[in-house]
Amino acid sequence: MAATVHQPTVDELYEGVRSGNRALIGRAITLIESRNLKHQDKAQLLLEKLLPHAGGAQRVGISGVPGVGKSTFIEGLGSWLIDQQKKRVAVLAVDPSSGRTGGSILGDKTRMEKLSANKDAFIRPSPSAGVLGGVARATRETIIVLEAAGFDVVLVETVGTGQSETMVSDMVDFFLVLMLPGAGDELQGIKKGILELADMVAVNKADIFEKKIKQAVREYKSALHIMTDASPNWHPPVITVSGLTGDGVPDLWERIEKHARIMSENGERAARRNEQRVSWLKSQIADRLLADFHSDTAVHQAFGPMLEDVRNGKKPVSSAVSDLLKLYHSKGYRGL
Amino acid sequence: MAATVHQPTVDELYEGVRSGNRALIGRAITLIESRNLKHQDKAQLLLEKLLPHAGGAQRVGISGVPGVGKSTFIEGLGSWLIDQQKKRVAVLAVDPSSGRTGGSILGDKTRMEKLSANKDAFIRPSPSAGVLGGVARATRETIIVLEAAGFDVVLVETVGTGQSETMVSDMVDFFLVLMLPGAGDELQGIKKGILELADMVAVNKADIFEKKIKQAVREYKSALHIMTDASPNWHPPVITVSGLTGDGVPDLWERIEKHARIMSENGERAARRNEQRVSWLKSQIADRLLADFHSDTAVHQAFGPMLEDVRNGKKPVSSAVSDLLKLYHSKGYRGL
Repeated sequence: MAATVHQPTVDELYEGVRSGNRALIGRAITLIESRNLKHQDKAQLLLEKLLPHAGGAQRVGISGVPGVGKSTFIEGLGSWLIDQQKKRVAVLAVDPSSGRTGGSILGDKTRMEKLSANKDAFIRPSPSAGVLGGVARATRETIIVLEAAGFDVVLVETVGTGQSETMVSDMVDFFLVLMLPGAGDELQGIKKGILELADMVAVNKADIFEKKIKQAVREYKSALHIMTDASPNWHPPVITVSGLTGDGVPDLWERIEKHARIMSENGERAARRNEQRVSWLKSQIADRLLADFHSDTAVHQAFGPMLEDVRNGKKPVSSAVSDLLKLYHSKGYRGL
Repeated sequence: MAATVHQPTVDELYEGVRSGNRALIGRAITLIESRNLKHQDKAQLLLEKLLPHAGGAQRVGISGVPGVGKSTFIEGLGSWLIDQQKKRVAVLAVDPSSGRTGGSILGDKTRMEKLSANKDAFIRPSPSAGVLGGVARATRETIIVLEAAGFDVVLVETVGTGQSETMVSDMVDFFLVLMLPGAGDELQGIKKGILELADMVAVNKADIFEKKIKQAVREYKSALHIMTDASPNWHPPVITVSGLTGDGVPDLWERIEKHARIMSENGERAARRNEQRVSWLKSQIADRLLADFHSDTAVHQAFGPMLEDVRNGKKPVSSAVSDLLKLYHSKGYRGL
């Protein structure tokens, strides 16, 4: 560590976050994102202090394929929440494909120029490229920081590919899926599984493709109609919205608030958050055990060739598993 | 081991399986299902010998909620395959909720009385209740045994709840979902995610609910229409079938064979099997590492209270993970 940069203490970070100091909020998040073991110990102490002050925000996940207009929509929604609803709004991103400077999602703040200049907004790009589990961990802990800093709404943007949706839906209270009306007769490019996660579908760019809207809404409604709802108290609505003009944004937010009211009153929201923490704990343990396994030199050397033999059907899976675990355990007390 | 029962050697089992000896096939499967470590070593040797002779069957997963008529359908399909197509047919089940004697699925062989009496059929209930990963492992390895024994078709039945569908779809070439036409205007009880796995949807009991059929077919087609197909070369069809009368069974099988032809020719079938083996290897490693973790006495004692603190938001997840891993590693060489 260079002596020229003062490293704030845990107490300084805590006070800074609690008083809403933007620079120290940023430093706290950087600490949480660090893979340095000393930083991680410090981050844990900080999180333990902040945790009692967390939990107050409306956490909304926002997903949609590239091109659906997420940035424009989030800028519009965020500005409206600040100007009309007097909310303080934080925007995070989960995009394992993108480094801090990658720019594919939120990387270029100028994409949300208006919002990022607002004193009641806080925008943070995706943690630098790494395993998805690590990116998700940092984002979950960043939500704790932002809630302890008093933000009322945390929007978590994710690009509509891969497993990142599942992870984001597992850290928010409400999962919003932005959809494009189909380019032709068919609705294209809907990722498998994405509708299952949706608490609401919003068909975006209503102003551009006006003619296709009704058909798109009908088809999404029909698809959601035959799926079992995750909650007996909420059927995901399908609405239209325009990120560009802001049409539909008040209706959209009203539904998110209605969802929050219903789920808070009947206890489902607390239960969802509790289960999210439990599943997070379990996945973190599994991730750490696997990371330790793969960091073993003998395992590392044997794994590639063994994987190929399994892939090609030359070696039974159970034999490969057994061989690899014997290698892993050979140095420790956990002999088979 | 009691001296009164002769334990067949690996070579005896191998010869027995290869020659289609039903008693020895059964013994081989029992060996594979055993959790006894000595048995597992023996099972590995057997699988290594059998593996070069495996891979020849059409592997079909069949899923559907209880009440959809899976047993009747499988009995009808199996009998038809044997009588009309001169196939040898094996039927397995994956049902982690059911012990060998539980009876909720295939447990009672009389449910498939006709098929189980057929010399060209082999029916095996789900391995006894246990973790799903273990049940799935045994079933995958049982497929190897049955293929080495010369069965042409392996049907893997699974009950339409929980994660068992995903696991079964990950061990077969073709995943068939049986559906009931809706009782009212709506189609009820469709498990989230099940349609995404389907290579075909068959609306069952076409003879009973004739009036509802067309609407059901239309709605499933519409739902599948807006989902991205897993393969560019196959769009999951929606057909009707009657397990009771056998109506639709030849059409159903013809489509499964067509799928097999297309996917074999373009290499997707081999690729799917290769990826299935890789994902099986990875999940087995993760399962074993987690089992070892939870078998640690110190971890075992601390886990429950720690989980509660995490669930209730009293302890940050990262702290709990860190504490638990320190406990786990404290006795071994893998100190943090």
